[in-house]
Amino acid sequence: MLKVAIVGGTGYTGVELLRILALHPQAEVVYITSRSEEGVRVADMYPSLREHYPALTFSNPDARELGVCDVVFFATPHGVAHSLAAEILATGCRIIDLSADFRLQDVALWEQWYDQQHGAPELVDEAIYGLPEVNRKDIAEARLLAVPGCYPTSVQLGFLPLAEQGLLNGQNLVASCVSGVSGAGRGVKLGSLFCESTESVKAYGVQGHRHLPEIRQGLTRAAGQPLELTFVPHLVPMLRGIHATLYTEEVDLGIDVQALYEQRFADEPFVDVMPAGSFPETRSVKGANMCRIAVHRPENGNRVVILSVIDNLVKGASGQAVQNMNIMFGFPEEAGLQTLALMP
Amino acid sequence: MLKVAIVGGTGYTGVELLRILALHPQAEVVYITSRSEEGVRVADMYPSLREHYPALTFSNPDARELGVCDVVFFATPHGVAHSLAAEILATGCRIIDLSADFRLQDVALWEQWYDQQHGAPELVDEAIYGLPEVNRKDIAEARLLAVPGCYPTSVQLGFLPLAEQGLLNGQNLVASCVSGVSGAGRGVKLGSLFCESTESVKAYGVQGHRHLPEIRQGLTRAAGQPLELTFVPHLVPMLRGIHATLYTEEVDLGIDVQALYEQRFADEPFVDVMPAGSFPETRSVKGANMCRIAVHRPENGNRVVILSVIDNLVKGASGQAVQNMNIMFGFPEEAGLQTLALMP
Amino acid sequence: MLKVAIVGGTGYTGVELLRILALHPQAEVVYITSRSEEGVRVADMYPSLREHYPALTFSNPDARELGVCDVVFFATPHGVAHSLAAEILATGCRIIDLSADFRLQDVALWEQWYDQQHGAPELVDEAIYGLPEVNRKDIAEARLLAVPGCYPTSVQLGFLPLAEQGLLNGQNLVASCVSGVSGAGRGVKLGSLFCESTESVKAYGVQGHRHLPEIRQGLTRAAGQPLELTFVPHLVPMLRGIHATLYTEEVDLGIDVQALYEQRFADEPFVDVMPAGSFPETRSVKGANMCRIAVHRPENGNRVVILSVIDNLVKGASGQAVQNMNIMFGFPEEAGLQTLALMP
Amino acid sequence: MLKVAIVGGTGYTGVELLRILALHPQAEVVYITSRSEEGVRVADMYPSLREHYPALTFSNPDARELGVCDVVFFATPHGVAHSLAAEILATGCRIIDLSADFRLQDVALWEQWYDQQHGAPELVDEAIYGLPEVNRKDIAEARLLAVPGCYPTSVQLGFLPLAEQGLLNGQNLVASCVSGVSGAGRGVKLGSLFCESTESVKAYGVQGHRHLPEIRQGLTRAAGQPLELTFVPHLVPMLRGIHATLYTEEVDLGIDVQALYEQRFADEPFVDVMPAGSFPETRSVKGANMCRIAVHRPENGNRVVILSVIDNLVKGASGQAVQNMNIMFGFPEEAGLQTLALMP
Repeated sequence: MLKVAIVGGTGYTGVELLRILALHPQAEVVYITSRSEEGVRVADMYPSLREHYPALTFSNPDARELGVCDVVFFATPHGVAHSLAAEILATGCRIIDLSADFRLQDVALWEQWYDQQHGAPELVDEAIYGLPEVNRKDIAEARLLAVPGCYPTSVQLGFLPLAEQGLLNGQNLVASCVSGVSGAGRGVKLGSLFCESTESVKAYGVQGHRHLPEIRQGLTRAAGQPLELTFVPHLVPMLRGIHATLYTEEVDLGIDVQALYEQRFADEPFVDVMPAGSFPETRSVKGANMCRIAVHRPENGNRVVILSVIDNLVKGASGQAVQNMNIMFGFPEEAGLQTLALMP
Repeated sequence: MLKVAIVGGTGYTGVELLRILALHPQAEVVYITSRSEEGVRVADMYPSLREHYPALTFSNPDARELGVCDVVFFATPHGVAHSLAAEILATGCRIIDLSADFRLQDVALWEQWYDQQHGAPELVDEAIYGLPEVNRKDIAEARLLAVPGCYPTSVQLGFLPLAEQGLLNGQNLVASCVSGVSGAGRGVKLGSLFCESTESVKAYGVQGHRHLPEIRQGLTRAAGQPLELTFVPHLVPMLRGIHATLYTEEVDLGIDVQALYEQRFADEPFVDVMPAGSFPETRSVKGANMCRIAVHRPENGNRVVILSVIDNLVKGASGQAVQNMNIMFGFPEEAGLQTLALMP
Repeated sequence: MLKVAIVGGTGYTGVELLRILALHPQAEVVYITSRSEEGVRVADMYPSLREHYPALTFSNPDARELGVCDVVFFATPHGVAHSLAAEILATGCRIIDLSADFRLQDVALWEQWYDQQHGAPELVDEAIYGLPEVNRKDIAEARLLAVPGCYPTSVQLGFLPLAEQGLLNGQNLVASCVSGVSGAGRGVKLGSLFCESTESVKAYGVQGHRHLPEIRQGLTRAAGQPLELTFVPHLVPMLRGIHATLYTEEVDLGIDVQALYEQRFADEPFVDVMPAGSFPETRSVKGANMCRIAVHRPENGNRVVILSVIDNLVKGASGQAVQNMNIMFGFPEEAGLQTLALMP
Repeated sequence: MLKVAIVGGTGYTGVELLRILALHPQAEVVYITSRSEEGVRVADMYPSLREHYPALTFSNPDARELGVCDVVFFATPHGVAHSLAAEILATGCRIIDLSADFRLQDVALWEQWYDQQHGAPELVDEAIYGLPEVNRKDIAEARLLAVPGCYPTSVQLGFLPLAEQGLLNGQNLVASCVSGVSGAGRGVKLGSLFCESTESVKAYGVQGHRHLPEIRQGLTRAAGQPLELTFVPHLVPMLRGIHATLYTEEVDLGIDVQALYEQRFADEPFVDVMPAGSFPETRSVKGANMCRIAVHRPENGNRVVILSVIDNLVKGASGQAVQNMNIMFGFPEEAGLQTLALMP
């Protein structure tokens, strides 16, 4: 059994890793850290895990203990992986980082958007961006893996086939996305209160959200040329789920877009191109490591509209992290990830 | 007191008219119809109205009874107002139609989108489109008034200042909108069940929604030239509210968009241009006859992004209907419409 | 116009007072305090109030400023009213306290349940408990009024007719109640997060909730003998509303309980005894100052089951506070309180 | 692999069976029926199942096809299993009935509560009530198994240890329960609409719910004497979950109730007695086959209050059905049932 450690296990991506790994046939969580909850049993914090983790207890992070594991997941705020990564890698342990610390390949860009100094610029070059549908081979070799953000996963997968075919060449892509409240994390903030977020919708980050440079980096790589987009995230009153509605500029009407998408993702276990005319619902992926995509052409104009849904905590975070782990360690890619969505 | 009748009073726009008119100082609901609920007391169907309508009872529609009133509201599926309007107008009674029957000025277009023959083409010319922020003067004289749809209200008000200034001239406007479930009405449909719509988001009508030609008609009138847009509505798990996120093409950076919007709506009692940088929440208009708008310029590109929120049942339907009634009968425009949003 | 001050205006009962008083024909909020939000405009904190309070700004509490008003509402945590009440009363200003500071007439009991010293024991004797359905006459004369808690309002009104008739004499009453999340206030606590409270139900305070001694005090007074009950509150995923399900022991089957309730509340503007067989829904009072009650006799056994619903922020707090104000100042009892529930 | 058929697979218990059985290592759904959806692919009706059931299609029920299977699950309205059971049993196929058809051992009582003639009285004697915590041995031998109702599962498990010890002997038990909306099924009814059930709570069935005689039958059997209770179910705005709050009469204070419960369920894989002082949340069992129970003694009085939570679609229906299947066919009782709850 692979020995797994989780740094920062008290947040929603941490508990989601615990949920997924509890049933993984080849991996086992043996160590979990939290400074604030040191000594607390996981089972007491998350009663849903009582049967599977009767004894696991939060510890203060200790690099030696981490180094004994085969892989360390970081489910931490940004900056933490920066400070611990080098020491852990030196022990031969591999890292899967769910934070934003190693997602951007341009250090200056990272510093601009995260408003602080980059803590490990020397590691950026070897960090692999973990979107398996794009760079599965690099992932297999990765020592330091950066799990994509939730919005970037849904938006990149949605635009990918058009971008790779050179069909997106303008400056006017639009990604209008909505997310459930778990995307804001387990931090205790006014805006995350039930009474402040239920029965309401609001946009945020219109001036520029931290996921924007990550999306641009991925699309530009796929297209082989700079692409620009306007990205507006919104908060909607549900627990889990991202719905990305993607608008292209005019696209050559001669293309069979449906066939293009079906072929592009035909062998992908975790991308589902739905039949023409479908409207994917976020609940169809609730709790599941899956991205469902539908492609539409509105009756007026020559745009393509792509609808792309994921569970932000699964394909948008912890599920994708385990998918990367499976690739990195040569396990079947679906191991531990076959759970079906809860519907209703 | 103005004598008011409501045809089709069992749906959500019907009960919302009852809620608003209960406290109106110059109008009184004296007659309400429903074929399916004939003989049922309004108070038994809607316990929230028990104190204010102890005796009002649903009747079968009767043109003579309707004709005795000063004004008839239609809160019916499309087609009903077509069949009754001429007879009612002949009695001197005025009509405020919340259905789509008289919203489009092009009869052929109506028949194409509603997939049936237009039932009263001879009345189309005199029907007035009831968006007070655009044609308050015509409304004052109207005998037959068409209340705008919910999405068209939020989208038109959001684009209006730019359209009127000739700043929208492309074919690439995008309106990405979300609506609460009450927009689907009180009809008993699978997709409107709690278990089919909560904890999920989905798009619909991407191929072409019936509100699209209405929005195009309004924007084209405002701009003085044909405008095209891609309109994608989504269903989100809340009761009330529409959040319209509007994306322009490149707009001349020399314009002070915030000032343009503030000036345009300075005298409008039911449009609130929020301070620069604001993110209007739909709950801030829940139950209130108000459209709140914020204008943004993303850091990258030259687009303008406009955020526009309404309560689909109030400014998007019954509140706007009463606002039109106030204008038509010379009452203060705010009469009966001062209720503040419930927040939380 | 009555000059009103609100101390502690940033919480949910504070904003609800602002919402209700905005449309009150005889009262006006002229002063509002908050230490943490000093200098912030009410309109910026609560966009729903933008139209009605364009200039009102939070101040640091100042006893002289408060003394210039006719009445001060306390919408504060417990202990605050204790410390300011004497000074304010000395100026001739009257006090309506929404906190628990003056609800219990037994100082020792208060100290036991609130785990701190009582800060104003000398004022307890003159404090009037503001349940108008019980002691309207005393309220009219009150200088210092204690607004009942939310659960105590729904439970006391539900048991009242039976208690007053001496029909409750056992030790086995049960009050099984559920509340929306707004009952937990606007404080930033983990358990009040959307992701911690939606899609879930849990009980709390089974060992003993602070509202228990208040309920016992009221029922004992009504019955003229000590009554005991088991009270279990639960949190359910909605914004507003309390549903109290009350179980008596065996009650003499000879009584027409429905008639008893109808007669007891016949003249009460804010208690609605629904027809026999009804199931009051909390949404039927959402935003309204109303308690709806239905009485049931299960087919087996001789118990009576009473269902009692209120909006915890209105009849359970701020609406009842204004109702008390109306009585204290000789206004019509319904002034400012006629708003109908939002349904849907 | 066990060949499984599902009759009536379009409802929520049907799709939940599909979800659970998709990952069962020893069973496979090979046949599913629905009259209304004949010819429709399961994957098209429930997109969440697309990966696991690409080809399975609804058929008209055919007794011969059913007879080829090893076990038939009925996920149908009551009456259907009555009409098909004998014919299916005759083929040697075993039956697990999720409907109420065979839950009551008293035919006359069944006919009284279900208001129709019993369709298979000759089978009642051999039908086994499938609550594994009570009669696991009988279940192993069952040909015809009746899966308990959702409320009866949570209420019986909650009272069981006290009932079996003879500690409940009065007529005054109370079960005050709340359920998520999925308990009402997938039928298209006004009361199940999102807009009719969200942001509200209501009681129902106070005069007598069909689950009442089932609960009484089970508690009477456990106690060895007739027990009576008042049972009030409520609807709350969430998808899944039942929270049962159970109130006893006075119970001998000498008993260590916590220890009693822990011992009674020590070997049960799907009942979790939480630590003293706990408040089980329904979300802690969302999607999981688990009943979590906590026992409380309020500070006043000698009652015991038991809190018992399940997912109504899992331990309250389809999960318990699979648990019974595992016992009937000698599989490990946890096979296919280890999925952890989604939290958040």
